[in-house]
Amino acid sequence: MKGIALLGSTGSIGTQTLDVVRRFPDRLKVVGMAAKRSVGLLDAQMREFKPRLVYCEGDEAERAALRAHGSKEATLEEMVLDDEVDLVVTATVGDVALGPTIAALKAGKAVALANKESIVMAGELLTRLAAEHGGSLLPVDSEPNAIWQCLRGEERTISRLFITASGGAMRHATPEQLAQVTPDEALQHPTWVMGPKITIDSATLMNKAFEVIEAKWLFDVPWENIEVVIHPQSMIHSMVEFDDGSVKAQISPPDMRLPIQYALLHPERLANIEINKFDPVRTGALTFERLEGDRYPCFALAMDYGRRGGTWPAALCGADEMAVEMFLSGKISFTEIPTVIGQTLAAHEAVADATPADALAAAAWARAHVADLVAGTGDSKPPNNG
Amino acid sequence: MKGIALLGSTGSIGTQTLDVVRRFPDRLKVVGMAAKRSVGLLDAQMREFKPRLVYCEGDEAERAALRAHGSKEATLEEMVLDDEVDLVVTATVGDVALGPTIAALKAGKAVALANKESIVMAGELLTRLAAEHGGSLLPVDSEPNAIWQCLRGEERTISRLFITASGGAMRHATPEQLAQVTPDEALQHPTWVMGPKITIDSATLMNKAFEVIEAKWLFDVPWENIEVVIHPQSMIHSMVEFDDGSVKAQISPPDMRLPIQYALLHPERLANIEINKFDPVRTGALTFERLEGDRYPCFALAMDYGRRGGTWPAALCGADEMAVEMFLSGKISFTEIPTVIGQTLAAHEAVADATPADALAAAAWARAHVADLVAGTGDSKPPNNG
Repeated sequence: MKGIALLGSTGSIGTQTLDVVRRFPDRLKVVGMAAKRSVGLLDAQMREFKPRLVYCEGDEAERAALRAHGSKEATLEEMVLDDEVDLVVTATVGDVALGPTIAALKAGKAVALANKESIVMAGELLTRLAAEHGGSLLPVDSEPNAIWQCLRGEERTISRLFITASGGAMRHATPEQLAQVTPDEALQHPTWVMGPKITIDSATLMNKAFEVIEAKWLFDVPWENIEVVIHPQSMIHSMVEFDDGSVKAQISPPDMRLPIQYALLHPERLANIEINKFDPVRTGALTFERLEGDRYPCFALAMDYGRRGGTWPAALCGADEMAVEMFLSGKISFTEIPTVIGQTLAAHEAVADATPADALAAAAWARAHVADLVAGTGDSKPPNNG
Repeated sequence: MKGIALLGSTGSIGTQTLDVVRRFPDRLKVVGMAAKRSVGLLDAQMREFKPRLVYCEGDEAERAALRAHGSKEATLEEMVLDDEVDLVVTATVGDVALGPTIAALKAGKAVALANKESIVMAGELLTRLAAEHGGSLLPVDSEPNAIWQCLRGEERTISRLFITASGGAMRHATPEQLAQVTPDEALQHPTWVMGPKITIDSATLMNKAFEVIEAKWLFDVPWENIEVVIHPQSMIHSMVEFDDGSVKAQISPPDMRLPIQYALLHPERLANIEINKFDPVRTGALTFERLEGDRYPCFALAMDYGRRGGTWPAALCGADEMAVEMFLSGKISFTEIPTVIGQTLAAHEAVADATPADALAAAAWARAHVADLVAGTGDSKPPNNG
């Protein structure tokens, strides 16, 4: 029986994680549950899964209602460090999971990473902590999860990673259409149903750049050996080429419950009748196209700054988070997303050997800088000016 | 350093095996070499690889010329049992490898199976001997080799195998064209360059039925969980679906040196610059089509008789071997191949708990029966009439 701390239980990955837990009550137990908002849904989840620990940012009345279930309020760090917790699932948005992830790794626990920000902002630190303390980082995202599956039983003689990308909601749009696209249009992902932030990040391919950065850290592969290839069917979730030239691909219909289940039950593979199977004949064709860099300026921007290390990836995360928020609230256009991120990164004064505090500060600075740019005040000061 | 006994050094798989050995002189050493014909080529191979043991069916003068290299003549069984031999590669055609394969497995050695007949004729026996004596059966054929690669590091929670088939040289032919096809036309395989017997077996899909039988024994999967799917590009060599619904595929351009190298160097994966890499964008599309049973009567016939066990698969192998020989020598048409095999199997009196001797006798009987049918005499008697 694995004890789970689920950070971000009410979001898209959180609810799908609970779908998996529900299927395997003899293997998985929710020890702690945390959510920022959605107090009504959290209440229903607590009624069903009866976690011993709970965290919520609701007001005092809401939190009192939650405590009425008999659960104890705990901070995220207290929750992940609880003795009964074997596996922490970080399904939050933004950088709130970074501190608890570090705490869990220092305690030698397993962390299932559905939240990309933590590993993008502090990949070097997290992989080092996992190695030093015997903890592990288990990727939940379908692409790095596919790579993890392909590497199972293999010595790490990786010559190339092919990370697949659907191309996102705007993959057929002309430059004119891109400038006019509404949040509702950009939220129509062709193959995946996900939360709003990651769906916009998929349309800009920022999400794919984050996956490249994540893969670089999780699998210790040089940047130049990671290729992104457009694969509109989202059936092949990624591929690994080994030194001998053999390629392994992991294939399944797009359904996040499969990689979530793989991370939660690892190393067991158990049948789950709710998950659709791949049917090669019905699928007909698995196709690949070159990534057109011109169409996706966010991708090029992210690859450029992301590989510089230090506080750059954290600033990138923060700038992107606020730029997507500004787009979703109608304050900037789709094509202004890379513009404000690029202007913000150009103004960032990076710290090289970044601590987690430096990374969090850089992300906060970048969010504020984007907000200021959009508001037109432009008087944000970098926090690292000394 | 692995010591290799290469049975069938002068055929298509034999010469490609030596290509791989040539690339890794610090890992692989040819201890023994056997060939039926091609004495000139065998002479050149001995000059290069200097095997200590040699076997050849040439006449006394030819064999004396071979002995002049300083190698010692040995039977196939003496060769595989030599202390220096760790791995036996069976790259022969027909059933000549069955005895040496059994001897090697009883001695706890590894056998790389490029020859399908042995495992088809005596799959139950070979897998039992491997398990009892600590030997191993390593598939060299690209499809079972792909499955073996996909199973690496996995517990055997297989829910389905997808064995891919190019569809062979005749996959677009009309029934009228099929009746008229010449040996030369049927030898034009769309994606693989192979020996003549296996190329015709690919055109009839008999080869694919043999692979299903091979996979059934090697991977202990029920017949009904093995599917054949047409995949014209021959890039995905097979796929495994696990209990959780996740599918793994092994992908590489069609080149037998890759699965040969995988079997020879296992578990190592070493770079081989001679082997082309898979390029997803250049490939463009990996497509799948349903196997049309009507087009491939040999496949249905083989699946029907092959799964009955006993001496049935051996009779199937023998009948097919002679039918293909008769087609290649112009004595029967392409569409008569399944006819004579079907008539022969219908006349076979099978032995249920078949010994290797029973299997060899059934194959010999079936070869003779096909030859008699074609010659029009039809007086062959089953050897197992008691």
